[in-house]
Amino acid sequence: MKLYDGGRAPNPRRVRIYLAEKCIEVATQPVDIGALAQRSPEFTALNPMQRTPVLVLDDGAVIAESIAICRYFEELFPKPSLFGTGALERAQVEMWQRRVEFGLLDTVAAVFRHLHPAMAEMEVPQVPEWGEANKLKVQKFLALLDERLARTEFLAGDFSIADITGLVALDFMKPAKLTIPEEFTHVRRWHGALKARPSAAA
Amino acid sequence: MKLYDGGRAPNPRRVRIYLAEKCIEVATQPVDIGALAQRSPEFTALNPMQRTPVLVLDDGAVIAESIAICRYFEELFPKPSLFGTGALERAQVEMWQRRVEFGLLDTVAAVFRHLHPAMAEMEVPQVPEWGEANKLKVQKFLALLDERLARTEFLAGDFSIADITGLVALDFMKPAKLTIPEEFTHVRRWHGALKARPSAAA
Repeated sequence: MKLYDGGRAPNPRRVRIYLAEKCIEVATQPVDIGALAQRSPEFTALNPMQRTPVLVLDDGAVIAESIAICRYFEELFPKPSLFGTGALERAQVEMWQRRVEFGLLDTVAAVFRHLHPAMAEMEVPQVPEWGEANKLKVQKFLALLDERLARTEFLAGDFSIADITGLVALDFMKPAKLTIPEEFTHVRRWHGALKARPSAAA
Repeated sequence: MKLYDGGRAPNPRRVRIYLAEKCIEVATQPVDIGALAQRSPEFTALNPMQRTPVLVLDDGAVIAESIAICRYFEELFPKPSLFGTGALERAQVEMWQRRVEFGLLDTVAAVFRHLHPAMAEMEVPQVPEWGEANKLKVQKFLALLDERLARTEFLAGDFSIADITGLVALDFMKPAKLTIPEEFTHVRRWHGALKARPSAAA
C-alpha cells in the first residue's frame, strides 16, 4: 500500500500522528499541495475531492479522508485502541472526534482559508467576513473544551483519535494567527501534554 | 435510554432513519428547536454544543452527535450492517459518509443558515456572501456525486449510513431553496430510490 501525503497540512498530519502512535510504517508518496499537485489529473483520478491524504491499497482500492484511513488501520491493528473500547466509549470517542473536528479544526481552518492571503488561490471565493465570524466560533469552542478538560485528562477515556484531532487543530492556530488565551489553563495543559508525545513530531 | 429528538432538522432525521432501517425502537423526548429549547439550561447540561439529537442511557451517560449515536446502536446491533462489513468496506463507508456530510449536507446547511431570514436568530452572524459561495459548492459536489452514482447503486457497497446522510442532505435542499439540476440523472435516480424506502418517512 502507499500513502499519498500532503505534508504540513492538518489532515495529512492527523494520519501521520495516528500511524506513529500505533507504530505502523507505510510507504509514502509526497504530494506538493503548495504547488496544487492535488489538482493534477493523476491525483484527481485517485481522489476527485482533490484532497490529501489518500491511501491506495495493493489491489488499487482507494481510501480518502483522514479519519477513514485511520479507521482502516484500526480494523487491521486494533491494539492499542485509538477509537475506544466497548460500545459506549467508541461512541464517545466518535462524539468528541466530531466535536473537536467541527468546533475547532474546521473553524480554525476557516479563519486560515478565508483571511490568509496565501490561500486566495485555494479558497475561491475567500469571504473575509466568514473568516472573522469563525474567530468567535474558535473562542467559544475553546471555552467549552476548557470545561471538559477541567474534568478529564483526555477528551474521551484514554488518549484517542479525538485528542489527535485536537492537537492538530491547536497547532494549526499558529498559521491562522490565533492564540489560546491564557485563561484556558486546561486546554493549555492538554496541548502541552499532546505536544510532548513523540508522535507529535510526525 | 431516551433519545432527545429535534424534529424536522437534518441530524435528528438521520438518526430516526437509521433506527427505522435497523428496526430499533427508542423512547423519544421532543426538543422544540423552533423555540430554541436546545439552549435551555437543562438541555445545555446534556449537550453543551446545544444541538440535537442526544441519546441518554439509563445510567446517565450521554452520547451526542448523530453519527456517534448511530455507531453506538451499530455496536449493540451489528446486523444488518449500515457501517460496512470488513476493514475496507467500513473505511469506504466512512469515507463516503464524510464526503457527503461535508460536501453536501454541510454546504446545503450553510446556504440555509446564511441566507434564510428564519435563521437570523440561530446563525449569528449570518454571512450572505458565504451562503452564496456554498451554492456553488453544492453544485460542484452534486456533479461529483453524479459521476459516482453512474457506476454504483449506493455510495459504498450496500445501502449504508452514507446513503442516509445523502437522503437527508438532498431533502434539506428544499428549505434551502435549492434544486437538483435535471442533468444529474444518477443523483435523481438514487434520491428517488432512497425516498421510496419506508425509513424515509421517519
